[in-house]
Amino acid sequence: MRSFLTTEQQARQDDFRAFVARHVEPVAADWDRAQKVPQDTIQQLAKAGYLGSTLPGKYGGQGWDTVTFGLLNEAFGRGSAALTDLLTVQAMVSMTVLKWGNEEQKSRWLPGLARGEIVGAFALTEPGGGSNLQSLQTQFTDGGDGSYRLNGQKTWISYGQTAGVFLVVGFAGAHSLACLLPREADGLSIEPITGLLGFRAAGLARLTFRDVAVPAASVLGKPGSALTYLAPVGLQYGRISTACSALGLLRGCFEEATARAATRKVGADMVGSFGTIRSLVARMGTDVEAAGLLCLAACRATDERLPEAFTKALMAKYFASRAAVSAAADAVQIWGAAGCHEDAPVSRYYRDAKILEIIEGTSQIHEELLARNFIEAGAKRAF
Amino acid sequence: MRSFLTTEQQARQDDFRAFVARHVEPVAADWDRAQKVPQDTIQQLAKAGYLGSTLPGKYGGQGWDTVTFGLLNEAFGRGSAALTDLLTVQAMVSMTVLKWGNEEQKSRWLPGLARGEIVGAFALTEPGGGSNLQSLQTQFTDGGDGSYRLNGQKTWISYGQTAGVFLVVGFAGAHSLACLLPREADGLSIEPITGLLGFRAAGLARLTFRDVAVPAASVLGKPGSALTYLAPVGLQYGRISTACSALGLLRGCFEEATARAATRKVGADMVGSFGTIRSLVARMGTDVEAAGLLCLAACRATDERLPEAFTKALMAKYFASRAAVSAAADAVQIWGAAGCHEDAPVSRYYRDAKILEIIEGTSQIHEELLARNFIEAGAKRAF
Amino acid sequence: MRSFLTTEQQARQDDFRAFVARHVEPVAADWDRAQKVPQDTIQQLAKAGYLGSTLPGKYGGQGWDTVTFGLLNEAFGRGSAALTDLLTVQAMVSMTVLKWGNEEQKSRWLPGLARGEIVGAFALTEPGGGSNLQSLQTQFTDGGDGSYRLNGQKTWISYGQTAGVFLVVGFAGAHSLACLLPREADGLSIEPITGLLGFRAAGLARLTFRDVAVPAASVLGKPGSALTYLAPVGLQYGRISTACSALGLLRGCFEEATARAATRKVGADMVGSFGTIRSLVARMGTDVEAAGLLCLAACRATDERLPEAFTKALMAKYFASRAAVSAAADAVQIWGAAGCHEDAPVSRYYRDAKILEIIEGTSQIHEELLARNFIEAGAKRAF
Amino acid sequence: MRSFLTTEQQARQDDFRAFVARHVEPVAADWDRAQKVPQDTIQQLAKAGYLGSTLPGKYGGQGWDTVTFGLLNEAFGRGSAALTDLLTVQAMVSMTVLKWGNEEQKSRWLPGLARGEIVGAFALTEPGGGSNLQSLQTQFTDGGDGSYRLNGQKTWISYGQTAGVFLVVGFAGAHSLACLLPREADGLSIEPITGLLGFRAAGLARLTFRDVAVPAASVLGKPGSALTYLAPVGLQYGRISTACSALGLLRGCFEEATARAATRKVGADMVGSFGTIRSLVARMGTDVEAAGLLCLAACRATDERLPEAFTKALMAKYFASRAAVSAAADAVQIWGAAGCHEDAPVSRYYRDAKILEIIEGTSQIHEELLARNFIEAGAKRAF
Repeated sequence: MRSFLTTEQQARQDDFRAFVARHVEPVAADWDRAQKVPQDTIQQLAKAGYLGSTLPGKYGGQGWDTVTFGLLNEAFGRGSAALTDLLTVQAMVSMTVLKWGNEEQKSRWLPGLARGEIVGAFALTEPGGGSNLQSLQTQFTDGGDGSYRLNGQKTWISYGQTAGVFLVVGFAGAHSLACLLPREADGLSIEPITGLLGFRAAGLARLTFRDVAVPAASVLGKPGSALTYLAPVGLQYGRISTACSALGLLRGCFEEATARAATRKVGADMVGSFGTIRSLVARMGTDVEAAGLLCLAACRATDERLPEAFTKALMAKYFASRAAVSAAADAVQIWGAAGCHEDAPVSRYYRDAKILEIIEGTSQIHEELLARNFIEAGAKRAF
Repeated sequence: MRSFLTTEQQARQDDFRAFVARHVEPVAADWDRAQKVPQDTIQQLAKAGYLGSTLPGKYGGQGWDTVTFGLLNEAFGRGSAALTDLLTVQAMVSMTVLKWGNEEQKSRWLPGLARGEIVGAFALTEPGGGSNLQSLQTQFTDGGDGSYRLNGQKTWISYGQTAGVFLVVGFAGAHSLACLLPREADGLSIEPITGLLGFRAAGLARLTFRDVAVPAASVLGKPGSALTYLAPVGLQYGRISTACSALGLLRGCFEEATARAATRKVGADMVGSFGTIRSLVARMGTDVEAAGLLCLAACRATDERLPEAFTKALMAKYFASRAAVSAAADAVQIWGAAGCHEDAPVSRYYRDAKILEIIEGTSQIHEELLARNFIEAGAKRAF
Repeated sequence: MRSFLTTEQQARQDDFRAFVARHVEPVAADWDRAQKVPQDTIQQLAKAGYLGSTLPGKYGGQGWDTVTFGLLNEAFGRGSAALTDLLTVQAMVSMTVLKWGNEEQKSRWLPGLARGEIVGAFALTEPGGGSNLQSLQTQFTDGGDGSYRLNGQKTWISYGQTAGVFLVVGFAGAHSLACLLPREADGLSIEPITGLLGFRAAGLARLTFRDVAVPAASVLGKPGSALTYLAPVGLQYGRISTACSALGLLRGCFEEATARAATRKVGADMVGSFGTIRSLVARMGTDVEAAGLLCLAACRATDERLPEAFTKALMAKYFASRAAVSAAADAVQIWGAAGCHEDAPVSRYYRDAKILEIIEGTSQIHEELLARNFIEAGAKRAF
Repeated sequence: MRSFLTTEQQARQDDFRAFVARHVEPVAADWDRAQKVPQDTIQQLAKAGYLGSTLPGKYGGQGWDTVTFGLLNEAFGRGSAALTDLLTVQAMVSMTVLKWGNEEQKSRWLPGLARGEIVGAFALTEPGGGSNLQSLQTQFTDGGDGSYRLNGQKTWISYGQTAGVFLVVGFAGAHSLACLLPREADGLSIEPITGLLGFRAAGLARLTFRDVAVPAASVLGKPGSALTYLAPVGLQYGRISTACSALGLLRGCFEEATARAATRKVGADMVGSFGTIRSLVARMGTDVEAAGLLCLAACRATDERLPEAFTKALMAKYFASRAAVSAAADAVQIWGAAGCHEDAPVSRYYRDAKILEIIEGTSQIHEELLARNFIEAGAKRAF
């Protein structure tokens, strides 16, 4: 896919990969064990500009296009899916505020987000909700003068343990509503979630809102627009980031598996000389290429504001996360017993990959959405 | 993938698809039944310039780039894989002669090939040989003054029933050798192969050479170069053409399946409303996109003469043909009993798709070649 | 699975397989081409007692248990899925009459069915219907004194071209109703269906009923019971027969593929020496064993009248037909180009296998039915 | 598969499952976290006779047949694959000693093993070895009078942290040799392995032998017989135990997934109402049945000492472990985010299942062994 990139994009990709090779790969297993990304690392990312990659220069961001944002996520995905998830949520919050915030909100939040002084978390999912947005239970009740009182619960919120600001979505009566809530808001309590299968260092949290005051100035967009206009912006970035993270993990599996196949002997024979292994390798390498192109196409369509950008992001996320799960399982096989130990990155990949098939919409939700799209188009062709 | 194309390429794609919708789709089932493409159709293709698509204008060809050639094959693959195979073999012969023929050979053969007055067939595969080229049994024995006598057998030769010229590969002692053999050569006998599972209209033939005289002027390239230099040129075009044909068939499955899912009821419910069907549709549509991008990347790498063009063509062929087989099987399921009848294009797709996974190297050969490539690269990374 | 059989069952299995090896395998390809099973063959089956295998001795049948019936179908599936379909429909009709017919109906029809003098066809599926039984359009209108007039259409009726009697299911108002209709009934027209992907010799037909007189004596069971009581008996035998036919075809793929892998060289190497091929072979052989056991378990549960017999038949049919499709596709790969020619049984297997995934309920319908069952059981465990 | 069991076997199965439901399921997650099975639990198993299940009564064992041993492992696999691994290694050591030990060795070791006073570990795998037994590096050097000095290393030894005796396999010159080594032997050092992906509580260890004295009385069987006669006995039990453990885990996935599908809502809809989920459930349930039958057939063939017992154990292990991996991945999808947390058994299943595809021979080794078997049989059919 590299030949589809501009020289500038290629140079950035080199930077990203060098950063990850130096600062992420060697320590990602430690973070996984500790169930925490160190604050230092977050500051390193901030300093490199990676936390403000998609925000325009006027707010202190890098103003990179979506393709470059995708390359950034792919590079980080190779090192640590848990850390990449920070790029995911930061972009989800930042881009939603950029697109739908008023000038005051942008001035207040975007510079800090762009410089990575503050982490934004996207508080959408609820205990009872899965991926069904219409069933959100979080309630905004009228507080007068455009203000609200907020009650409810959110869960599986990535970087909820770290975030300085939460983009919270719920309902005010029949109207979906979103607001920006600072961490220190009275009535907000944050409970870390530990003991996860993967993404162990991504600082997930459960949030509880008990009569939290939401001033009018914190409400994002118009009442009724949160699910139809605001959330889709964040979710598009969420899907692209996750798709590219899966692509990076997939590449990681491929690189680790082929290096092992090329150097590890079983008796007199190299692991990679067995045809049963070669089938796995061939499939994995082809999937890296296919997933790479799907991610690129989704990013480019987003940059070009094509109407098909939504479907393309769905396809990229669906394909890349499934290919990552399959590649991680195969990479462990190629490594054998050694691949089942935490010293082998493939062991972590196997756990993290599964999360990628669940966050930002499970593969089954993606099948529903894609099929709906495809069959509607089919209906047009049929008449 | 369309957004990756130039305006000119897009316009050509529109032409190709319109041609196929008009002249191929409505009659492809008849050709399949008759086990023959009518001569008229071949002339229509010739007139449209499609049989000389990759040859330069100076020989009467269209001089289209490989991306455009790929689009042509994709469009035809939607209509008839058997007819597309004509584009395959014509390009294989034409491009090998263009690259390795001497000026005299080019003048003699290329104009006719470019204008489609003559069909070229690629006579490589042998009864005992499968995909192993080193084991070819066809013998060129020295006839003096650079001439040879040719003996041996070739089989599964697409459009062998129609071809005016054969590019024959064999051995002269230890040296691989290739020549161009006109249909009327003494000692060449051509036996049609009928009763095939798919590609029934592709006019396959068995060739027998009994002491055929091969004048020095018919020898293509230098002795010893046939397998290492000449054949790879043809095979690269063969793989790209087949990959794109598979892509077209895959799109056909997708379009036919979604149209059916959108309009056909089982009892009160639309077929496409069942989640078990939706999974199939989602996968199929995503594969269309992925295969399309892999084909495009292979074509572009060929146009840019990148060293990875070979691997990219392998990946495109491997992925697209397997996806086509899987999509065809699923499309028949979505059609149900009606999909098992020759009136349904998906019934033909199911048969033709399987051939795509075998010609130009089986999927298993592709796995071997890809894995070798990938593991060699892995060895470099590992040290 | 053989060690689970009684000595008598094993002996019968040997007979069945010997019969098929002698009378079916050598000529199945001819029938496929001719789209017809010769009348002689049907008489051979009748003479061997195979058309009355499940009927009790008092009606002239063999009185074999369902396990033996399964072995019979498995043996025939190895030779010709199209011919096995005759065993399917004969058992479907015979067993429904045996279970739900009155004494007069049994005396009239069962001896002829048992001795194979007459073929019974199961006329359930309709043009608009797929697998949804509640939406049948065939109408029985009251003719007085318990008689009816029959109007409607049936399609994809196996051995409709040959059958002497049809078990027709439709509705009389809101009540489902079934009757036995002799071929010669006035107003019944029978139109052969040709040009099928597989099961080409199974003599499928479209039936049209135009005001056909149905005397009271021909009505099978009570009005309202046809879908809830009668059809399930036939469908259970239909599923078991099809599952075992798929098992036989699967074994055919396995035997043909391993024989080829063991004897065919590509260059200097035996096909079976490639690891990419070995994976396919290992999977195929394991599927033969698994499918064999699932079929056996379904047959035994039917013999023991266990409530789980229904689910077990669903699982056997679902697994075996899918495994057959996958094995046939792999067997063609292992055969290479030769496997795409009608001289190779695997080429026919590839086409016939697909039909097995559609008749007697598609795999998707099976997924629906199985999942409903499993999730209901899950609900009980959950509380 | 239950209907294939004797009344006694069914009663034992009920006991086993009740034991597991009470003593294992509720605490398996704790053991996983602690990376240790408590000594109490091992004593509970001992007391129940589960550690001597396959040893004859004369040594204090239960004398259960292999089918019952399989049921035991299946029941435990539902609760904890890590604990089941104790049953695996105990049977591997016990049955090898029973079959190949001399009377003195049997008297010394079997009673303690049978009563579970001592745990036996099977020390075969080496750091450089994978599944290739011919390349073992562990050396027995002649110590005179039939005694040896032992040097070398073993790794991934299940319950090496707990075992009182090790069955060690290596080479004495060109002859393979096995001995029984008590834990307290001088020169044996045992290093726990932690940080595993799955089987975290199975107490794996690395063993180092530094000039360990092996008296003649500890040598098991004749020199030269260790790989050809002794190890296969242990490995057969190892494969059967692992296959049944995988079956139990598979059932666990199925029960947890269907219970969830039946009770958990996403918005207004039950998870199990989505067709995309139903496909997964149908496949999973069918695999439970198929794997159950394959395990049963392998156990019965072992009990009946059929020559095909070896192949049947390979098939059972290959199918069940792969089905377990696939089911665990699907079960996590059905659970969604909640399935990625350690509170959900499916999260542990996902990690443990992968180990089952690696221990006692990877799936790829199984493919090699099975294909060799199948193709040799195919060669016989072909001539």
